[in-house]
Amino acid sequence: MGKVVVVGGVAGGATAASQLRRLDPDCEIVIFEKDRDISFANCGLPYHIGGEVAERSQLIAATPESFGKKDVTVRTYHEVIKVNTSENFVTVKNLESGEIFEESYDHLVLSPGGRPRIVPALAGVPENHVLHTLEDMDEIMKYIDEEDIREVVIVGSGFIGMEVTENLRMRDIDVTLVHRNGYLYGHIEEEMAAVLQQTLEDHGVTLKMNSEIDRVADGYAHLTTNEKIPAPMIIQGIGLTPNTEFLRDSGVDVTDRGLIPVNEYGQTNIENVYALGDIMETNYLHAPEIRANIKLAWPAHRMAYTIANHIHGGYDVKFEGLLGTNIMRLFEYEIGAIGLERKDVRDIEHFVIDNQQNFKAGYMEGASKIRTKIYVGNDGTILRAAMISKSGVDKRLDTLAAHIRAGGKAQDLINIEVAYSPPFSSPKSDLNMVGYKAIEEMKKRGLY
Amino acid sequence: MGKVVVVGGVAGGATAASQLRRLDPDCEIVIFEKDRDISFANCGLPYHIGGEVAERSQLIAATPESFGKKDVTVRTYHEVIKVNTSENFVTVKNLESGEIFEESYDHLVLSPGGRPRIVPALAGVPENHVLHTLEDMDEIMKYIDEEDIREVVIVGSGFIGMEVTENLRMRDIDVTLVHRNGYLYGHIEEEMAAVLQQTLEDHGVTLKMNSEIDRVADGYAHLTTNEKIPAPMIIQGIGLTPNTEFLRDSGVDVTDRGLIPVNEYGQTNIENVYALGDIMETNYLHAPEIRANIKLAWPAHRMAYTIANHIHGGYDVKFEGLLGTNIMRLFEYEIGAIGLERKDVRDIEHFVIDNQQNFKAGYMEGASKIRTKIYVGNDGTILRAAMISKSGVDKRLDTLAAHIRAGGKAQDLINIEVAYSPPFSSPKSDLNMVGYKAIEEMKKRGLY
Repeated sequence: MGKVVVVGGVAGGATAASQLRRLDPDCEIVIFEKDRDISFANCGLPYHIGGEVAERSQLIAATPESFGKKDVTVRTYHEVIKVNTSENFVTVKNLESGEIFEESYDHLVLSPGGRPRIVPALAGVPENHVLHTLEDMDEIMKYIDEEDIREVVIVGSGFIGMEVTENLRMRDIDVTLVHRNGYLYGHIEEEMAAVLQQTLEDHGVTLKMNSEIDRVADGYAHLTTNEKIPAPMIIQGIGLTPNTEFLRDSGVDVTDRGLIPVNEYGQTNIENVYALGDIMETNYLHAPEIRANIKLAWPAHRMAYTIANHIHGGYDVKFEGLLGTNIMRLFEYEIGAIGLERKDVRDIEHFVIDNQQNFKAGYMEGASKIRTKIYVGNDGTILRAAMISKSGVDKRLDTLAAHIRAGGKAQDLINIEVAYSPPFSSPKSDLNMVGYKAIEEMKKRGLY
Repeated sequence: MGKVVVVGGVAGGATAASQLRRLDPDCEIVIFEKDRDISFANCGLPYHIGGEVAERSQLIAATPESFGKKDVTVRTYHEVIKVNTSENFVTVKNLESGEIFEESYDHLVLSPGGRPRIVPALAGVPENHVLHTLEDMDEIMKYIDEEDIREVVIVGSGFIGMEVTENLRMRDIDVTLVHRNGYLYGHIEEEMAAVLQQTLEDHGVTLKMNSEIDRVADGYAHLTTNEKIPAPMIIQGIGLTPNTEFLRDSGVDVTDRGLIPVNEYGQTNIENVYALGDIMETNYLHAPEIRANIKLAWPAHRMAYTIANHIHGGYDVKFEGLLGTNIMRLFEYEIGAIGLERKDVRDIEHFVIDNQQNFKAGYMEGASKIRTKIYVGNDGTILRAAMISKSGVDKRLDTLAAHIRAGGKAQDLINIEVAYSPPFSSPKSDLNMVGYKAIEEMKKRGLY
């Protein structure tokens, strides 16, 4: 397989390189990473701020040196600025020296990821931070220490905004969360988001809903609601812009949203060019006609294996598409979802089962409700499920992931023989109950 | 459907009756229960002894009175002593008055359960107790209080033995566990049982392995190892004897082990006679040629629904067979298994994947290893899996239950898109890793 060039050395790129080396001890592998670090645990960054990850070093899975020992060349601060797919070379800029050079490849793996979007009012504002890289985390922690930060304004309520909020509260730092619309955490249903909102308030977080920062001046953020709040530090997490501009005129297809469509082997429209990670566009496993872009770790790792295997000549491992399984812990709650986004569900005829039940035997100390909403197509396809609970959301999501992947329908949920003992479940688990209710509903509708 | 007689009013029988009434408001339903109580949460009994179930009343799901309101007749202390399947009636003995009478049926549901086995040396010994019914629990708690019991000898290390041990330790009662062979808790692999053994010792339990009680005298138990230990109270849990003797000459097939084989609708060999619960014999879902008798709550509840539906005329809900999913908490550990018993696995060509990995991101506070052993047939069928961890065993078992049920093979485990976030998993979960390892092993063996 000759020489493989990997663009981007974080989750997707680094894993693809490792897998490749494992499969083939001889091929040449070069990783170009435009930033300082490679292969760090980006999902773990918020938890080092809060202290749940005790040592910074635990967040670093691999270094250029450790890759060097595996005979993988890593060049950090090297940005790939152009790709020539007809002559199979990339143009690389050394960001430290300014030098520009070309590097040929036999196979090219694109894992450039994205960069945090910045609202115009915060561009260039010295109080403003993002948390996307290890470097960002280092800066945030240094800033908190050096400026003796006791209060932070969080902008955005996605994974990053919520996780950073939790972790700052763990350090007893006051948090004001500014969110542009009326409910938090768009990954989940409004009625579940309302629970999160209450939880944040219970944990001393000040919420500024339907509100955006208009400008920052003299240490204060001026909101679109005409309020003025102290903002000695701002951390913003409102999403990513794909780093795919360098592919312009490369011949690699890029969508209007800046994403790279791939097939079941991770190939782009160009046979020897692969893509993975936050910029890849694939399809939903259970609704193949709907395109999926899931900026999470599991898809990146899974696709890394597929690509490495395919470059190595394997057609036996395919990427089946995604379910978009996602989860977050927020203080005492667990919140998660699987399947299509709500906007996609709306376009499909479906009914909803909304079940509330104790997550373990109701007579056991500490039992409380898990709420599960499941969106069922007319043939029983589980289009989407969302849930919130103080425990066990990850269990239900993983179970649904296995179930849906293998073609299991809503009415089949009654047949999942769950592990029951009072500390863990009810004899009829909530997923079983959702199945029973789905059958009743389908009978009513003449679908069963 | 006329008149339905139910023999046995605990989990299986009571649930079948409830489901029947839900489906059909008009049919006549009579439950005969030979003991004092019906419809109590037998799995919860140990936890009331330890206090994790605060109120005794929480353990009672239904009473003869509450059934009465649903127009279901319940006769406790009524034992069915004979069944006439050619003329469709049962012979019933009122255990309080001694009266014997006949009751006709259109459909008969058998849920007689079993009774605790007693080793000969403990028969009639006043210090000896079992924990099978609510009445047993009441007696145990009364005995502890009245005799001011500070130490207990537990005989047997199945679910009951282990759970009672844990709960007695919660009350600071000293426990000596007498076990007849060299490793505990036969539901699990020896190397995992060794962890349990250590855990018990860490929690102050005295273990007497390879040892049985020979006789009890003057408050002491004399062991087969010639030791003599104080035994002011003994609680024995060494398994059940099926209560199926009354079916002799009834025409209902009963196996040598006293079990009742049923089909996918819960029917015995007699069309209008059904059986469920601890005495039913069905087959493994993923290995239909192997018979299964799983004395747990999930199969009973699931079969109750199937039988009620079938009596009501439904052929749409089938019982698919079992996976034998089981789990137990023992102090800080969770232990569980799914699939065939080890003795059945031995007869099938297979290989084993033994994986140890953190149950959540390794850099997170509180991370520790989950050990998973998975037995894979040559075509990738997951014959059995066993695991032990401080967290997340229930999650993996439920996920495997969904996966195996739907025909998922070991090599497909890589495709389960688990819910990942550092507090919950690794990006490649341990089940995913088991899948990757299974593929490698299958490639080595020329099976993939």
